[in-house]
Parts: sequence; C-alpha cells; structure tokens
Amino acid sequence: MDLASYISGFVDGEGCFCVSFQPSGRHRFGWEVRPSFSVSQNADRAELLHILKERWQCGSIRPDRSDNTIKFEVRKISDLVGKILPHFQAYPLASSKQADVTRFGRICWLMHREQHLTKEGFIEIVKTAMEMNPSGKRKYRERDILKSL
Amino acid sequence: MDLASYISGFVDGEGCFCVSFQPSGRHRFGWEVRPSFSVSQNADRAELLHILKERWQCGSIRPDRSDNTIKFEVRKISDLVGKILPHFQAYPLASSKQADVTRFGRICWLMHREQHLTKEGFIEIVKTAMEMNPSGKRKYRERDILKSL
Repeated sequence: MDLASYISGFVDGEGCFCVSFQPSGRHRFGWEVRPSFSVSQNADRAELLHILKERWQCGSIRPDRSDNTIKFEVRKISDLVGKILPHFQAYPLASSKQADVTRFGRICWLMHREQHLTKEGFIEIVKTAMEMNPSGKRKYRERDILKSL
Repeated sequence: MDLASYISGFVDGEGCFCVSFQPSGRHRFGWEVRPSFSVSQNADRAELLHILKERWQCGSIRPDRSDNTIKFEVRKISDLVGKILPHFQAYPLASSKQADVTRFGRICWLMHREQHLTKEGFIEIVKTAMEMNPSGKRKYRERDILKSL
C-alpha cells in the first residue's frame, strides 16, 4: 500500500480546501483572509486524522461539538505552502476538487509572498477564492469584500 | 500515484460496507439478506465513482434524489466476492472501518457458499451483521430477525 496515494484518495472524499474572509479592523483592506485545509471524520474514527498530523508534522486535531465530528486542520501559511501543497502536487486529486487545490495553492503563495497586502494581490485572492467550492455557501460575496477598496 | 491505494483511501472516507435485512415471504427464514458495498458523492463530483465502476467492471451508478448525491453500488455476491473484497484484502483500509470489511467479507463468503440457507449460517450472518457499522441505525434488531427461527 502506498500511503501517499491513500491519503490523497482519502482527502479527495473528506478534505476541504477553503478560503474564508472575516471582517477585521486589524487587517489591511478591512478583511482577514483565512485559508484552511481541513479533513473531518466522525468522532469514533479519528485514526486517519492522526496519521495525517503525524505525516505532515503540522496542524491541529480538535472536536467539532456541533455535529459530533473531529477535524484535522492546517491554517499556517508556511505549513500549507511547505507541507500540504507539495503533497497534492506530487499526488494530485483525481476528481474536479483538484481545481480547488490549484486555486487554494495560488492564494497561499500570494499570501506567502505577502501580496495580500497589495491591492492587486488582494483582489486576485478574492476573485480566486470566489471560484472555489461552488457547491458551498459563502457568508460574504465578492462585491461585499471589494466595495471598500 | 498508485490508483489502488488511492481508491482504498477514498473508500475509507466515503465507502460503506453494509448488510441489511428485509422481511420477505420468498426467502428462507422470512428474511432477505442484502449485502451492499456503496460509495456516495455529491452529484457534481461523480468522476471517482466512474473510475471505480470502470476499474472493477461491476456495480451501478445512480442518483439518490433524496439528498442530491450519486451512488456507486455493488450488490451481486459474485462481484463482491470476486472483485471488491480481493481489492480490500490487497489494499486494506487504514482505519477501524477495515473491521467492517472483514465482517462483510465473512458474510459474503457464507452467502457465496449458500450457507445463508442453513439455520447455522443464517444465524452467523445475522450476528456478524449486527456487529457492523456501530454508529449507523438499524431498522431491525437481532431479536426481531431471529425470533422466527
């Protein structure tokens, strides 16, 4: 069994590459950009999440009491850029979710290079994020976030 | 990328090895035993399900309109015994769900050898099935099914 491929298959089903936006007076342009890679499981079968944390040596595992699940999550940009994204470059997802990985990667790289602090970079991040997870719901739309610029 | 390992990882998250019981006047002991291996996905990302069907050359893919998902399912005992179970013997699940695969395999083998038509075999199948999917809900309990024997 090839663990790297196994992990990609598991993440294809259970993983989420998301970028959310939070209004914030402390952040440039009034919004905090929050990329997050997460994998959720029923609380009674968290084994795989520990394998992920062990393998990548980053992230945190915590219970989500709202729906009795447990979640492995990586938010730190240097971990996303240095540990998570290289895995999915070497072992890409077989489904259309890989398109989200690509967009997620672009956003993380822009943030890693501090481009979210420039107006151009921030706009590119917002526009790219809005193309992601088309089946999910968004609290804030592109026009809400960009209207302050 | 090793597709076999990828598939096992995907199934670890999204797959279900289930055995249900249906009251039936046409079946011995008054119950139809229905093993099912299935994998569900949101309707907008069915690619992986087609990869599974193509690889194993069995099963069916159909929409589940109740929750806007799409499901790949294998019910035929000869396909379960000859195609699905050998995969998970060679590429076992890394989580505790593998214990269900073992129980599921035992039930399928008993049925393949027509042991569900003997009282002993039927009882073993019912008892083994009741140990599976502890977090799921069951319509019929062991005592409901065995009381007619």
